[in-house]
Amino acid sequence: MSETIGVGILGLGVVGSGVIKMIMENKESLYQKTGNHLSIERILVQDKAKERDIEIDSEVLTTDANDVLNHADIDIIIEVIGGVEEAKLHIQQALRNKKHVVTANKDLIALYGPELHQLAKQNGCDLLYEASVGGGIPIIRGLNDGLAADEIKEIMGIINGTTNYILTKMEESAVPFKEALADAQELGFAEADPTADIEGLDAARKMSILSRIAFSTNVKLSDIETNGINNLSLVDLEYGKQLGYTMKLIGLAKSNNGTIEISVQPTFIAKGHPLAGVKDEYNAVYVRGKSVGETMFYGPGAGSLPTATAIMSDVIEVAKNIQLGVNGKTIIEGPSKKGMTPPNEQYSQFFLRLHVKDEVGSFAHISQLFQDMDISFKRILQTPMKKQQSAEIILVTHHTSLENFMNAISKLQDMDVLRSIESYYRVEGEVEE
Amino acid sequence: MSETIGVGILGLGVVGSGVIKMIMENKESLYQKTGNHLSIERILVQDKAKERDIEIDSEVLTTDANDVLNHADIDIIIEVIGGVEEAKLHIQQALRNKKHVVTANKDLIALYGPELHQLAKQNGCDLLYEASVGGGIPIIRGLNDGLAADEIKEIMGIINGTTNYILTKMEESAVPFKEALADAQELGFAEADPTADIEGLDAARKMSILSRIAFSTNVKLSDIETNGINNLSLVDLEYGKQLGYTMKLIGLAKSNNGTIEISVQPTFIAKGHPLAGVKDEYNAVYVRGKSVGETMFYGPGAGSLPTATAIMSDVIEVAKNIQLGVNGKTIIEGPSKKGMTPPNEQYSQFFLRLHVKDEVGSFAHISQLFQDMDISFKRILQTPMKKQQSAEIILVTHHTSLENFMNAISKLQDMDVLRSIESYYRVEGEVEE
Repeated sequence: MSETIGVGILGLGVVGSGVIKMIMENKESLYQKTGNHLSIERILVQDKAKERDIEIDSEVLTTDANDVLNHADIDIIIEVIGGVEEAKLHIQQALRNKKHVVTANKDLIALYGPELHQLAKQNGCDLLYEASVGGGIPIIRGLNDGLAADEIKEIMGIINGTTNYILTKMEESAVPFKEALADAQELGFAEADPTADIEGLDAARKMSILSRIAFSTNVKLSDIETNGINNLSLVDLEYGKQLGYTMKLIGLAKSNNGTIEISVQPTFIAKGHPLAGVKDEYNAVYVRGKSVGETMFYGPGAGSLPTATAIMSDVIEVAKNIQLGVNGKTIIEGPSKKGMTPPNEQYSQFFLRLHVKDEVGSFAHISQLFQDMDISFKRILQTPMKKQQSAEIILVTHHTSLENFMNAISKLQDMDVLRSIESYYRVEGEVEE
Repeated sequence: MSETIGVGILGLGVVGSGVIKMIMENKESLYQKTGNHLSIERILVQDKAKERDIEIDSEVLTTDANDVLNHADIDIIIEVIGGVEEAKLHIQQALRNKKHVVTANKDLIALYGPELHQLAKQNGCDLLYEASVGGGIPIIRGLNDGLAADEIKEIMGIINGTTNYILTKMEESAVPFKEALADAQELGFAEADPTADIEGLDAARKMSILSRIAFSTNVKLSDIETNGINNLSLVDLEYGKQLGYTMKLIGLAKSNNGTIEISVQPTFIAKGHPLAGVKDEYNAVYVRGKSVGETMFYGPGAGSLPTATAIMSDVIEVAKNIQLGVNGKTIIEGPSKKGMTPPNEQYSQFFLRLHVKDEVGSFAHISQLFQDMDISFKRILQTPMKKQQSAEIILVTHHTSLENFMNAISKLQDMDVLRSIESYYRVEGEVEE
């Protein structure tokens, strides 16, 4: 058994720097926890001469990935370059060279997780990615180990800090989406190109990883109904607030009698729900298990040091496994094939905002339609509008199937009294009166 | 390698029944997760003839602990009888017989954890107790594995469901303590003798376990400043609410420059704080790490199935370790000796309620005293009282040391304008104005 474990790092951005800082500052406690010293042997960078915040021996820097991937003294490779194709090639080469891999790369794991797992197993290597979902929140361990004995029924995640920051800002300061986005960009909570975040793609990738773990099933990204927050209006948020809801971008993964429903969409969450209090750039994953009931894991979803904390928890696990000689032997349940839940079995409450002609009987017509479709309301708000002799109606339904609700929407559109369907969203939780 | 792992259970109350239910209902997934079948060989009960909710082959029931502890086919013993001395003897015997032990027994682990760990290690056995703190919340794994790489700075736990239910009831329905307690007893959230819960002893035992894990130090229960909720008045809760706080029984463990501060006490939590939303019988553990920042683990703190979920997560870990041949090899950091933080280095905000003579200059006298002691206020409320020509004053201080605050209290008592010190509490978090 070696007393020193060699570490190679691919990428030296903010997260890579955080990892190095943690390894340097916690030498003694890492040794106590793993029984080994961790030694950083090589770091792949784009530019060796670039000035950096942390002190690193320039000898360990290299611009050639092979110096890291083929290095004889390296046991663990930490991948923090991001991107998909290049990172994939690097990780494959690392695993073939019998090096354990720890990565924060959600895009890669969402797309190629099962295939890379297979390769890791063939080579007796560990492949871990706690940092890929929820930054510093140990949610993957929570599902894999903490709730190992339970049957997970539902996951609801606020797993994108950018959109949660924007939504909090919109609600609390009543600023429109664009302004809140600009604010987030200025503070570094949103990227220059925020598309993947605000359109929900980032959250969808993370949900595919979480549902693979929770439901042992591989879901194609294209099977995840994905809607972002870029079209949200302050009007809806304001009405939601009046009714006791807060708007969150929710990644939902739910087991329905053997099928799985997965989506990412703006959802009104009732104020008393544990997810309702998750503000700003924070993330949280709410898990409902058959036996455990409701649990929630809360924490920072991004950031250099929180992400580095998650990466280092994986590194410690790999190092312990090396010490015990059990790498690549994690017993993983084979993915079972579970179908996607059809819309007639996806049940939810819905919020709906309509403009109708402001005349006698408008609302009666509309309520008749919903009654005919067996959809009942828990809340109704009707307000006359100044212009156009219209009235605005807000409805919150009791649980009904997505199919039924969408049929109602389509029938509404044919009604003479309707001026426009302004918006509709899913609703979770019960507002205490 | 055996294909069947024998399980013995000490105790068949609600939690024991939950464990048996989970083992029976999840046979297939347990096999997939551990590579072994779990077989319940013997269960220690008090009365074999008693009617039970679950179907159990009467052959496996025994009233003699030795039938379980010395059984040749039993690999893992699950201890759910509770109590301290007898449970300790059983667990010692089990470990000496090379049987791995999983227990939910917080009292035992709080008192004898280190000694039993030692014995487990000597015998190459696992000793796990995820269920001892926070019921179904995987908080021990969260600290041990998920945040393994981080330096924990502070833990604040709502880790007693009974008191949290009572406090929620008092605040939301404005009923006094005794009534809320009676209500909790009726609903089964409080025991017939609720002393250990309402006086904070149960929470103190759990804090000693959490701080052992987080700070690698052994704290005597007598070193934990422990106050319960039995003297809380509705008046204080009402004022707290007005000022933006909610009252929680908080277990606090904090690292202060190499020393540790541990207490259990009623504490006002600012409304925006993640712990403020934890209601009813739910538990949550808020963890602040040097690198990860703020995280929180939320879930059911008690109950048959949630507790059984935690126990089964330990059983799965033991079973995996058996499969891999690495039991008892967990690398545990040796406990370091850390002193307790002296009161002059324990910093906090404080809430203080006073009755003073309602005369000109009363408040000026009092504020002069605090100014002299370098304690400044963030909130002040003064209300005239109907009787006795008194006024009620509520103060919330900025951060000051416990020693300084207690000195101020003692000087207050000598002041002529003071009628009485009604109450004082710690305060955590910032209320957003």
